[in-house]
Amino acid sequence: MPYSYLTPLLEKNDSKIILLILDGLGGTGNSAEGKTALETATKPNLNRLAAEGCLGQTIPIRHGITPGSGPAHLSLFGYEPLECNVGRGALSAAGINVPVHFGDIAARGNLCTLDKQGKVKDRRAGRISHQNAAPVIEILNEVQIPDVKVEVHQVKEYRFVIVMRGEGLSPELNDTDPQETGVPPLPLKAQDPKAEQTAEYFNTWMEKAYQALADQPRANGFLLRGFATDPNFPSFEEAYQLNAACIAEYPMYKGVSRLVGMEVIEDIEKGVKGEFNAVKQIWDDFDFFFVHIKKTDSYGEDGNLSAKAKVIEEVDQALPILLELDPDVLMVTGDHSTPSPLKSHSWHPVPFLLWAPKTHRPDLEQEFGERVCARGGLGTFPAVETISLGLAHAGRLEKFGA
Amino acid sequence: MPYSYLTPLLEKNDSKIILLILDGLGGTGNSAEGKTALETATKPNLNRLAAEGCLGQTIPIRHGITPGSGPAHLSLFGYEPLECNVGRGALSAAGINVPVHFGDIAARGNLCTLDKQGKVKDRRAGRISHQNAAPVIEILNEVQIPDVKVEVHQVKEYRFVIVMRGEGLSPELNDTDPQETGVPPLPLKAQDPKAEQTAEYFNTWMEKAYQALADQPRANGFLLRGFATDPNFPSFEEAYQLNAACIAEYPMYKGVSRLVGMEVIEDIEKGVKGEFNAVKQIWDDFDFFFVHIKKTDSYGEDGNLSAKAKVIEEVDQALPILLELDPDVLMVTGDHSTPSPLKSHSWHPVPFLLWAPKTHRPDLEQEFGERVCARGGLGTFPAVETISLGLAHAGRLEKFGA
Repeated sequence: MPYSYLTPLLEKNDSKIILLILDGLGGTGNSAEGKTALETATKPNLNRLAAEGCLGQTIPIRHGITPGSGPAHLSLFGYEPLECNVGRGALSAAGINVPVHFGDIAARGNLCTLDKQGKVKDRRAGRISHQNAAPVIEILNEVQIPDVKVEVHQVKEYRFVIVMRGEGLSPELNDTDPQETGVPPLPLKAQDPKAEQTAEYFNTWMEKAYQALADQPRANGFLLRGFATDPNFPSFEEAYQLNAACIAEYPMYKGVSRLVGMEVIEDIEKGVKGEFNAVKQIWDDFDFFFVHIKKTDSYGEDGNLSAKAKVIEEVDQALPILLELDPDVLMVTGDHSTPSPLKSHSWHPVPFLLWAPKTHRPDLEQEFGERVCARGGLGTFPAVETISLGLAHAGRLEKFGA
Repeated sequence: MPYSYLTPLLEKNDSKIILLILDGLGGTGNSAEGKTALETATKPNLNRLAAEGCLGQTIPIRHGITPGSGPAHLSLFGYEPLECNVGRGALSAAGINVPVHFGDIAARGNLCTLDKQGKVKDRRAGRISHQNAAPVIEILNEVQIPDVKVEVHQVKEYRFVIVMRGEGLSPELNDTDPQETGVPPLPLKAQDPKAEQTAEYFNTWMEKAYQALADQPRANGFLLRGFATDPNFPSFEEAYQLNAACIAEYPMYKGVSRLVGMEVIEDIEKGVKGEFNAVKQIWDDFDFFFVHIKKTDSYGEDGNLSAKAKVIEEVDQALPILLELDPDVLMVTGDHSTPSPLKSHSWHPVPFLLWAPKTHRPDLEQEFGERVCARGGLGTFPAVETISLGLAHAGRLEKFGA
């Protein structure tokens, strides 16, 4: 949860705070050139901000812990990630704007292919197309059982979200996805006595749903995981007195923003410039702007260091759009590292840049990069204290104690 | 509270530790010259210690949190500040050496001027002089009610401390100070059912006290805030096996030192040299010396960077007095930052210098300053671990575990 010690210190003013997240920003530099994508990129604007402002590096969860996107963003938003681990089901539902109220149960689903013995042959139903999966998911959506209401919504291609609404439900259920082929889906069981009734509902529903898919050529089964209810987080407005907007292209990041009560801006022009222009359009309506750039992470996961560097260059070139808005605080960082040599999320510290010309303390560092950030004036700090730094530099926190 | 994991590790020896606090030491350097007071000051002695010893920077409370003087010092003394937030009343009473025992209730008071409608016209009674306020405060001191004993002591000018002693008292009371003029003092109410009786006592006392001041020309009212009882902290001796002395000019710092069981040295010659000479005089009698220099903070709050730098120079020039005593550990830092450009306490990390020639690990840095400290060998660490570092470098902590 957000730090309760902030609450009595909060003070409203007209300041504007931008949190610009380049997903998976950090690298390791243990590639042939010995440089990371961030160190390789030509980025005069970011370097100028680094020279004028203050650097540091964040630990997303704890040292050595590689975060998923959900916890990494919750941490950046000030929600202690070990305490606020939201189930994938609730995150996915929020991502496609399907309401999950406290007490409803949501889970992520995959359509899959089962063989004649009922064993999983393909966990993604041969990566069935969005168009071909849609009618199958609609069949699932029509399966109903007594006492509860079930909804099944397509996310993308073979992926869906299932939401069960009713009385006395509990998310303490195991995944049915075995995460491998050649074995049957796992039986669904209550992980806590209070989830017995919910397990019974889901088992009843699944039996009917399997029958309904029996004649499908490829998508004749499904796997569920990440049973969860709404985490019931205090909103950004409650926790920080910030009226916050989310500018993101991908559902996952919209979802986690909705969970903390941000207003998600829709119908944004694609690309970095499109996102920055969206900030410009809503500038007068919000205090806090969470801007999420996805492609740095995607190229990191592809192991494509130069493409990752190009995304950073694109951000740098578009940055004047944000700077012309004259923000009081601009923080540029990642949610975690995604080093190209590792082709995956990692636990490495994340480079952090804070620029707040009225209140920052410039350090000795002159450019934005992993190694330089390690020496920065903000030191190495928990990502979960990012919002506190933003609030402080925006003059939104009063003194603690006399 | 001080870290309980230290207790079984404590080991006594003859070492001497000095904690030299330059109040509000840190700056931001976002002034015209781009330098802080500490970076501007000519300070050959401090620079030599920095080159020989080890630097770092502390976070007084948490990232982004601006501390008041009370929590900032408690943190430096190893008392977790979020857990040990002492009410202003108890701090102020301790500052003027008025005993407040656990169960007694103390509050800070201001004499004020009320208009004919009973609204606050001046929260400080026109800054009435010490001499003119003294008899008014003595009138208050004579007001008594049944069942409890009330004492009112002058602090300075219009400021006083009120202490109520009796059975079953509780400090869960709101301030009567509205913190603005043109409105009446706030009604005093219990903030918890267990404080109902205490609220009644105070309301009875206040009614009599207001009558007693009715004819005063300027100081015809008063405002109370920061109701508190003794926090009942373990002493430095109990927590660290350190016989500790406080050398400070200002009541606030003497007060917080008394709360942790330090012996406060009185009748000190004024100025930095006076304080350092006082350390010399008592050198054989104590293990730990908390030396507090106030003026760095005062000039920071005035926005007077060059005067702040001059105080640091004065400290540097007088430093040989301390060095000739041959301390085992000398730590030089601030309780928080007070950047001249901000004219107030701030949340920025605080430069820290540790010099312990027998045990320190020198780092790469060669001078004492904010930006250099950010790169120092001690890293960025919570101020609340300062005493642990002092004890360790003094050889006063045994190994943890086998």
